[in-house]
Amino acid sequence: MSDELILHEDPRSGNCYKIKLTAALLGQPLDARQYDILKGETRTPDFIDNVNPHGRIPVLQVGDRFLPESNAACCYLADGSELIPQDRFAKAEMFRWMFFEQYSHEPNIATLRFWLAFVGEDKLTPEQQSQIMAKRLAGADALQLMDDHLAHQDWFVGGAPSLADIVLYPYSHVAEAGGFRLQEYRNICAWITRVERLPGFIAM
Amino acid sequence: MSDELILHEDPRSGNCYKIKLTAALLGQPLDARQYDILKGETRTPDFIDNVNPHGRIPVLQVGDRFLPESNAACCYLADGSELIPQDRFAKAEMFRWMFFEQYSHEPNIATLRFWLAFVGEDKLTPEQQSQIMAKRLAGADALQLMDDHLAHQDWFVGGAPSLADIVLYPYSHVAEAGGFRLQEYRNICAWITRVERLPGFIAM
Repeated sequence: MSDELILHEDPRSGNCYKIKLTAALLGQPLDARQYDILKGETRTPDFIDNVNPHGRIPVLQVGDRFLPESNAACCYLADGSELIPQDRFAKAEMFRWMFFEQYSHEPNIATLRFWLAFVGEDKLTPEQQSQIMAKRLAGADALQLMDDHLAHQDWFVGGAPSLADIVLYPYSHVAEAGGFRLQEYRNICAWITRVERLPGFIAM
Repeated sequence: MSDELILHEDPRSGNCYKIKLTAALLGQPLDARQYDILKGETRTPDFIDNVNPHGRIPVLQVGDRFLPESNAACCYLADGSELIPQDRFAKAEMFRWMFFEQYSHEPNIATLRFWLAFVGEDKLTPEQQSQIMAKRLAGADALQLMDDHLAHQDWFVGGAPSLADIVLYPYSHVAEAGGFRLQEYRNICAWITRVERLPGFIAM
């Protein structure tokens, strides 16, 4: 079938999980091919030539076409669904939080989790070591902004779950693995519970 | 008028220019309020309370609502226009390049321009100094990926300009201010010329 969906992924990656969560909430079947990023399996010539010249996962394969970037894959899957608001401003607000996730959240919160829980603090380069404090502060800023926003509403945009919630959930709910203390963010904790109760939810 | 558009910006920022370029190509009038980020004018209590709790520009004001994140503002302005492909996969590819821009391009290419051309290399912190080489390598990777992609097509997605081109142009065309050598990327140079010939184009 020309539009069969295959996710090229590392199961430990929150960026890959986002796509699986989107598909699950939409009831959309998704095959998977697994790679170990710590073993360099996304940097092989075969992967570079045939899956993603950027050497990264996730990549969503749609038939014989390949789509890198986790949030773009979520947009593809959810196109036309209720996970994307129809209202013009609300849709733009959803994108606001999706770009915030990739610029201000993931590079701090996900990277610290990867460095501390997967690579190991003693194996980091001096350059990585020197960035830990800045990433801890920027990550805490991102979580505080989310917590303040959620003080007044159940979901990031309007009154219903959208891709904004789905892409922010993966690295938020495991932020403690990067040294953040979730109990300091009460509204985020309540929102995490709401996400986990969505019909069709699957765990990471 | 309830949907009057005001851009809260620093004119030196490519992230702000993106939004003005999108509006210009669409023939959409846009007022502006200017701030000097080097003087901390986006970190004042007034700005935090009334414009963006994240303390950053650009912010697109739509009537009395405020939309942070440059690429989200471009999505708002271009909604329903020919700058966003209608085809589902092409639209997702546009988002792929927009997320690539914020994750792999801007934090390297724009940050080096800001550090070297605006802050000054001698005024950088030791932690920033230690990141220059990594950002130079990652920025060169991003430019190479773009150059390879443009070897086979005039625009980033399909056969026509889209928001992907508009958001990648600003920091690409001034990449030399961050120490990158554009002449090494022939396809990017040709694409820059094509962008600058679009009807309605305005310079940064």
